[in-house]
Amino acid sequence: MKNGDKLLKYLDDLKTEELLLPVFYKPNRVVMLDQTKLPEEKYIDLKNSAQVVEAISNMKVRGSGAIALAGIYGIFMAVLESGGDYKYVEKKKEELINTRPTAVNMHKTVKNICLDLKSIKKEKLVEEIENRCIGIMKKQLEVEKKIGLNGAAELEDGDRILTVCNAGAVAGFGFGGRTLSVFRTAFEQEKKIEVYAAETRPYLQGARITAWELKKFNIPVTLITDNMVGAVMQKGLIDKVITGSDRLAANGDTANKIGSYLMALSAKENNIPFFVSTSKYNIDLDTETGDGIEIEMRDGSEVLFYNGKRTAPKGVKAIYPAFDITPNKYISGIITEKGVLKKPYKEKLEVLSKLK
Amino acid sequence: MKNGDKLLKYLDDLKTEELLLPVFYKPNRVVMLDQTKLPEEKYIDLKNSAQVVEAISNMKVRGSGAIALAGIYGIFMAVLESGGDYKYVEKKKEELINTRPTAVNMHKTVKNICLDLKSIKKEKLVEEIENRCIGIMKKQLEVEKKIGLNGAAELEDGDRILTVCNAGAVAGFGFGGRTLSVFRTAFEQEKKIEVYAAETRPYLQGARITAWELKKFNIPVTLITDNMVGAVMQKGLIDKVITGSDRLAANGDTANKIGSYLMALSAKENNIPFFVSTSKYNIDLDTETGDGIEIEMRDGSEVLFYNGKRTAPKGVKAIYPAFDITPNKYISGIITEKGVLKKPYKEKLEVLSKLK
Repeated sequence: MKNGDKLLKYLDDLKTEELLLPVFYKPNRVVMLDQTKLPEEKYIDLKNSAQVVEAISNMKVRGSGAIALAGIYGIFMAVLESGGDYKYVEKKKEELINTRPTAVNMHKTVKNICLDLKSIKKEKLVEEIENRCIGIMKKQLEVEKKIGLNGAAELEDGDRILTVCNAGAVAGFGFGGRTLSVFRTAFEQEKKIEVYAAETRPYLQGARITAWELKKFNIPVTLITDNMVGAVMQKGLIDKVITGSDRLAANGDTANKIGSYLMALSAKENNIPFFVSTSKYNIDLDTETGDGIEIEMRDGSEVLFYNGKRTAPKGVKAIYPAFDITPNKYISGIITEKGVLKKPYKEKLEVLSKLK
Repeated sequence: MKNGDKLLKYLDDLKTEELLLPVFYKPNRVVMLDQTKLPEEKYIDLKNSAQVVEAISNMKVRGSGAIALAGIYGIFMAVLESGGDYKYVEKKKEELINTRPTAVNMHKTVKNICLDLKSIKKEKLVEEIENRCIGIMKKQLEVEKKIGLNGAAELEDGDRILTVCNAGAVAGFGFGGRTLSVFRTAFEQEKKIEVYAAETRPYLQGARITAWELKKFNIPVTLITDNMVGAVMQKGLIDKVITGSDRLAANGDTANKIGSYLMALSAKENNIPFFVSTSKYNIDLDTETGDGIEIEMRDGSEVLFYNGKRTAPKGVKAIYPAFDITPNKYISGIITEKGVLKKPYKEKLEVLSKLK
């Protein structure tokens, strides 16, 4: 077998038509969906590891799972280029890690792939790395499917579900990520669900990406602006809320995309269950409660513009807190690949995070 | 005196440099700020009542006060054109009313101006109508200033205040409308306040208009997106919230621009006072509670676009609930031209709405 054939066969067997892969492999090139252009579907060809590094740096790919997947392909290209030179691969690994300092998932993934590189015989290097890459991809798709199954069991026929941002297929490994997997699976189980997507300013991931993915999967979707999440609940249009979670503190408090907290408050007030759908990899036992999570302030200039056009007059400043904290008391359940946790969360999260 | 001279003199005496008039009069023409273009400042000349009717229809002017002010000038132009023909004026009045079926404030105002037209001598018609127009404008500016004074007394030096949409000068009669009057007055009293404006999708009145007005009045302003209202409170950046109110039920429940409810929930959770700043004209004693206020659904297509550019893929639908309901229990005080009401509201609102 030629270099990369095993990976190509794995991708062939995947039934990729059932997936929305944010990054994949074709002979001698990595193909990446340019997520900055969505909902326009533009794929870019990356001919070598340097181009993969550049594309990750330029944020063509987003979502912690998808960035990790891009990292996997970056390492794979580096190994193909290396001619068995471990140092070359190690150097590329560092370059990948340096592209996005906060992409912890990708950092861990590329480090795992490169574990004990020197112990591998030169002539076996490509094959071994190919196996490792495939192993991680298989496992991660399995995680997404399990999250989907566990979450779908919480949904009923006819449910209208509100969500935020995009924790979907192209933010993950291609099945449906940590939240859209739930909608996908319920829909495939022939539950007649409908999703309400909040557009999620300033980057509009809800409008540009979640609405696009749901359409791809034929799931009915209705778009709203972020300030409408209370009104749609007051109107009786929402049965459940499901958001992702960037980080779960040990007590179940969660940090997620700004606006999640408002959905939780409004859900509580209107007696609507509020779920967090995430993976055990997002549990952070070292942080006791949400109070320990510092809300990151990003560059506010994005708030002043859309598509290059300014909304506010010159001289007006803006700020951009990237996420908010939802206290555990507002969370009706935490959907994970290992099951759906119910209150109280502390002990269950501890057990869960130690499971293989 | 020539026709219109009294009105011109009134406007001259106003010190218009201290105002942001959404509509005003120049010899033989009405000048209107095209609010659809803000923050770009574009004024349009309206040469006759038909052009005023058209401009109101095309929503060049917005905000219940400003629409009423445009109606006033529409009637005044009609009277100038009428040559004393009451029927002509009555016809124009009906045209004005039909431009915006829900602009109740404007409907009442033009009806009041045209009260018992026939009882006025033909040769006195212009002068009498001119007096009536000036009388209403004087009174309404007085109302805005009183709201400002009463609200400013609730603010302290250093307060950082969150607001939504635009209940400001160009939505009213030019001083500061029903909410920005409070910021203006506090600022003029040399209280060092700072305003956080939520951009208010889909029309972006917060970004385009409130931020612009605050800059005009030199009041420090920071823009945020609508989903950030929880995060900024969690970050400890907000001391008070003040929103307008489109309609107050008899018990103090209020209907206002979508997103107001989320601000109230989040303010409560974070122990931040939440005020509604409005006029007694917005009290609706016929509606007992917020449950009796139907949330109007407008055309959802605006949600699919941002600054004229489509955000979601084609085929995705959207909805647009125009406002939400904030229950009275979340309201720390109702700022009006007659004072600041504190809980319980029912009896006080009844008394207030009967005051002259």
